[in-house]
Amino acid sequence: MNFASDNTAGAAPEIIDAIVRANTGADTSYGADRISARLNQKFSALFEKEVTVFPVATGTAANALALASITPQHGAIFCHQGAHINVDECGAPEFYAGTKLVAVASADGKLTPGAIRAALRHFQRNVVHHVQPWTISLSQATELGTVYSRSELGHLSDCARAEHLLIHMDGARFANAVASTKCTPAELTWKAGIDVLSFGATKNGALAAEAAIFFDRKHEGYFPYLRKRGGHLFSKMRFVSAQLEAMLDNDLWLRLASHANAMASRLEEGLRNVAAVKVDQPVEANEVFIALPSHQARRALEAKGAIFLLWSPTEDEVPLIRLVCSFATTPQEVDAFLAALRQSV
Amino acid sequence: MNFASDNTAGAAPEIIDAIVRANTGADTSYGADRISARLNQKFSALFEKEVTVFPVATGTAANALALASITPQHGAIFCHQGAHINVDECGAPEFYAGTKLVAVASADGKLTPGAIRAALRHFQRNVVHHVQPWTISLSQATELGTVYSRSELGHLSDCARAEHLLIHMDGARFANAVASTKCTPAELTWKAGIDVLSFGATKNGALAAEAAIFFDRKHEGYFPYLRKRGGHLFSKMRFVSAQLEAMLDNDLWLRLASHANAMASRLEEGLRNVAAVKVDQPVEANEVFIALPSHQARRALEAKGAIFLLWSPTEDEVPLIRLVCSFATTPQEVDAFLAALRQSV
Amino acid sequence: MNFASDNTAGAAPEIIDAIVRANTGADTSYGADRISARLNQKFSALFEKEVTVFPVATGTAANALALASITPQHGAIFCHQGAHINVDECGAPEFYAGTKLVAVASADGKLTPGAIRAALRHFQRNVVHHVQPWTISLSQATELGTVYSRSELGHLSDCARAEHLLIHMDGARFANAVASTKCTPAELTWKAGIDVLSFGATKNGALAAEAAIFFDRKHEGYFPYLRKRGGHLFSKMRFVSAQLEAMLDNDLWLRLASHANAMASRLEEGLRNVAAVKVDQPVEANEVFIALPSHQARRALEAKGAIFLLWSPTEDEVPLIRLVCSFATTPQEVDAFLAALRQSV
Amino acid sequence: MNFASDNTAGAAPEIIDAIVRANTGADTSYGADRISARLNQKFSALFEKEVTVFPVATGTAANALALASITPQHGAIFCHQGAHINVDECGAPEFYAGTKLVAVASADGKLTPGAIRAALRHFQRNVVHHVQPWTISLSQATELGTVYSRSELGHLSDCARAEHLLIHMDGARFANAVASTKCTPAELTWKAGIDVLSFGATKNGALAAEAAIFFDRKHEGYFPYLRKRGGHLFSKMRFVSAQLEAMLDNDLWLRLASHANAMASRLEEGLRNVAAVKVDQPVEANEVFIALPSHQARRALEAKGAIFLLWSPTEDEVPLIRLVCSFATTPQEVDAFLAALRQSV
Repeated sequence: MNFASDNTAGAAPEIIDAIVRANTGADTSYGADRISARLNQKFSALFEKEVTVFPVATGTAANALALASITPQHGAIFCHQGAHINVDECGAPEFYAGTKLVAVASADGKLTPGAIRAALRHFQRNVVHHVQPWTISLSQATELGTVYSRSELGHLSDCARAEHLLIHMDGARFANAVASTKCTPAELTWKAGIDVLSFGATKNGALAAEAAIFFDRKHEGYFPYLRKRGGHLFSKMRFVSAQLEAMLDNDLWLRLASHANAMASRLEEGLRNVAAVKVDQPVEANEVFIALPSHQARRALEAKGAIFLLWSPTEDEVPLIRLVCSFATTPQEVDAFLAALRQSV
Repeated sequence: MNFASDNTAGAAPEIIDAIVRANTGADTSYGADRISARLNQKFSALFEKEVTVFPVATGTAANALALASITPQHGAIFCHQGAHINVDECGAPEFYAGTKLVAVASADGKLTPGAIRAALRHFQRNVVHHVQPWTISLSQATELGTVYSRSELGHLSDCARAEHLLIHMDGARFANAVASTKCTPAELTWKAGIDVLSFGATKNGALAAEAAIFFDRKHEGYFPYLRKRGGHLFSKMRFVSAQLEAMLDNDLWLRLASHANAMASRLEEGLRNVAAVKVDQPVEANEVFIALPSHQARRALEAKGAIFLLWSPTEDEVPLIRLVCSFATTPQEVDAFLAALRQSV
Repeated sequence: MNFASDNTAGAAPEIIDAIVRANTGADTSYGADRISARLNQKFSALFEKEVTVFPVATGTAANALALASITPQHGAIFCHQGAHINVDECGAPEFYAGTKLVAVASADGKLTPGAIRAALRHFQRNVVHHVQPWTISLSQATELGTVYSRSELGHLSDCARAEHLLIHMDGARFANAVASTKCTPAELTWKAGIDVLSFGATKNGALAAEAAIFFDRKHEGYFPYLRKRGGHLFSKMRFVSAQLEAMLDNDLWLRLASHANAMASRLEEGLRNVAAVKVDQPVEANEVFIALPSHQARRALEAKGAIFLLWSPTEDEVPLIRLVCSFATTPQEVDAFLAALRQSV
Repeated sequence: MNFASDNTAGAAPEIIDAIVRANTGADTSYGADRISARLNQKFSALFEKEVTVFPVATGTAANALALASITPQHGAIFCHQGAHINVDECGAPEFYAGTKLVAVASADGKLTPGAIRAALRHFQRNVVHHVQPWTISLSQATELGTVYSRSELGHLSDCARAEHLLIHMDGARFANAVASTKCTPAELTWKAGIDVLSFGATKNGALAAEAAIFFDRKHEGYFPYLRKRGGHLFSKMRFVSAQLEAMLDNDLWLRLASHANAMASRLEEGLRNVAAVKVDQPVEANEVFIALPSHQARRALEAKGAIFLLWSPTEDEVPLIRLVCSFATTPQEVDAFLAALRQSV
């Protein structure tokens, strides 16, 4: 019953198989191998547009490198207050991009044009005293398990274009968003105005594989040099690329994400029958937030073997907990959790 | 006949096995897993001293993070002119540490106390105009395939202590050096005055695994935060740690490195019978540098399928080529190369 | 009628005289001159404690260097949302310190222990995913012309100590605060728990002179190297130091600041008789914020030659304007402004 | 007899006068004042080309900001081993530009196309492992008091264009070079292929004034933001600009520099009659390097009140000393030094 995160799961068998298959004899290092050579084409097919793909091994690297490639040192990056880049990367975007993150608040983890415009009012353009608004970074799915609809992305994108801002999408859980919306990858990215995507695979069952995907080469900036300079160019790159390729083959990435989403839905449905708890956010991807009646209930639940994250930081609040389902979550685990919960509240 | 680098080989079967074995169910992410928990103890046993081990996935990350942890922004790092950190990491140490690398030249790729002291004469201590001498970084084995003896390390270390400098060892090929000298890991590191080691596994048959190893906790500085901030903290860390653990089990790391060294020796021996070529450096690890008679001979050799690096950068010099043997190099490959060489010169 | 800022005034005659006096023959450069040598002692006398004084020429330099000296790259700096370091320095603290600013809001420009504690709840200590709370930076006087009382500083300081945070004071208008509170410089700084002060002189009538003042040598960190590395070590430092010395001689700094404060009071008193306008903040130093009835009134005022800053950023709000008095503001200017205002509203 | 540096002198009377004259009433801050507004035009006239001028107050700031504006983080800057930016700025260029300096050696302090090309051989273009050659920085006059001729600059510039490199000129002593060569400012800069100049005034008699001058707006990059972000945008900018303007008025800058050069010549001539000493470099600007017979002679000279820099760093070498003449050096001082020298050797 480990719902602490989707990265507490191991790797999907297909991923391991791909790594084993990639391990055949010598090949050129640092990304000039045969598998890496196929990625641009495969992802271009997926996104229905010629894209460039830069594999890395962590989401933090993908985010920070992508942001640093499109944002100068004196540019400001607008993101949600709870965004991974703002809260959980120990300042990696600031380290790589040199820039300032401007945190914007909202209840459901989503940025809105209104919130962006309100934040923009504190910055004067072309005034050297102020860092200059440059980039919006949004998470899809969000940190609260919600998903931007095509229309929401379109409105944000209209705002970005009107304000001359670029858009980065942190897609650590992009697969869950695609699986949830039934939109195409293209519809949720460049067709909705996204300029660069951190395509996540690790949380979705890879061992360690992410990719920065640029939808227009002009935004790449100095990405290849920044990646090397940051220590993120793998010598045996084929093993990272093989994971990404395996994800695309036969839509593995969507199957894995759909399963995780389905487990979250099962969890949510079960929770409807537990009067003492409240689901805190719309369950649109693979995360479920639950307001428990008390910390005593939380501890009882933990004592029964359930592992999850306490989202509300302090003891003096109603305990809000986060449960994340992964490709490896089983219906049995979900049901066992529900049973444990019913006994705990 | 791929002798381009030891990172053109894939991963050793034992490494793949370890990854597969690590893939059993859920475990805590970001290094709090069961396998990572064992590393400090296992490496402490290996080094006969309590050490702290920080796994990362690239040598550039290990080097840059280790150097940034022990060197402040206004410190200078002395290294060999041809050092990987100076030439092949696109400025990663400068990016992470903020500091200046001071390149020192020598014929055999090794730093000497005399060369360090000569370089030091350009810096005045406690004078704010000058970056301040802080750290020596040496490569063991060196970029030229030579190996520092215990005595050479001791002299460097005496110099470092006298000059109040710390020592970092870039051990991308540390295993080859240990296998070559028959010294213990302890003798080649902390007993010889090394403060922090980049312990390489990737070039020695891992998929992607390195470790920064501190021999004294006081030198760790803010390593854990820098690693996260740099995007080098893996969520599914167990898969990196499993590779490191597998390397230590049953001395796999030394068996792999000994094999690579033996293949380099076999190459060198064979070259003695080829009058037209000259071995350029003592073959003390897994690299062989050969001065070919002409670029025509080089191209003939390449036409026969031999893959290697042209070390001398220009066409107007005698072509110096580098051949690197790996855990995967076979005697047959070596012999085939020698045959091709004899036909080419 | 230039009330745009206290830095639109020139330099006080005593400052110019000091520069002229300093210009006698050769002296050692880079701060080893006779005038600079006296600063530590003179400021120590002023602060009733042995302090170290590092002269620089801009407030941004003083702030950024002081913050970078006490805060590591992965540390977080808590400041008011409207703080100069957050809004008006184009990311200088981030550039120098590498760190993240955490903006805290309040109505009167002041930080409170409650607001700090609320912000702290988003950070977990000793968790590498989060930048680590390290420093509070407060402005005295604030950006809104208010002044922290000794007691307010004491409460903030208690909070800082309890939370293991250091405190930096941006004292660009420290003189105005001291003149306003009648407290001693010691009472408003180290006795109230301040660790490092940016002592401002430029806004108070210097040509270009500020100082970072450390109340405990252990907090200096690598300030001297950072200052040089940032390009802020003046070769003819005596001319900066002479301005600081002149400020201290015969309490010039307090006389100048008292005058500026008095002019702001005169302005505020006059405004009481203008029913159509509202003073927006307590006038405790040398700044007055006025809510005008309309933008038409604002433009009428400007047409009459009044120069000031429109504080509220947009046309669709009640125009809030900022007026700053300086050492050079005359009662006549104040009265002329009041007359113009009465005719404009 | 202070020959330690040209920055041990104070400020020229005309500079102080200009500061006094600038101190008349209020003016807009941060460079939007009336004096600053005239600089672009005045410098454009001087350089016979439309240039943009960014005043700063230290040479380190001018150099680091100029270099950071034209060089990306992964670019390499080639400079002389003894260049001020390499030796005397505590890593400021690395701090601002993020990049690596590549030190090139020569006997007379000058870079040559041959030396640049030799250094370039260590870098492969468009290979992410290597920082990319981007910029040449040369000092005019050099750190050894020599001066590049127009023809030497032309050859360097041809090399730079052929190799796709930009050229920065550190002109801390540009006035001395212009005065020495009788070339026009244009001939020694953009007509000779220079892209950006650090125009020095401080060493030439200003209080604290330098300027980064761009000969093509396309190279400005983000200079205005970097300057603010670095803390180098002065609020009372008029006092910096007034110094620069005063330098240009009636060719003050050339008169001051010619005097300094003449004093150096007088020194050199006098030294011809002192058999025991040897002038070490051609005296082409305002610096004279002298090889003394012994450290005993050096100490005797110091005991007689002569102040100078010991250039050779150690006691076990022939003492090489540097003497710098300034606008304030008198013939009497020179003659007194020569007399003291004759008595000391």
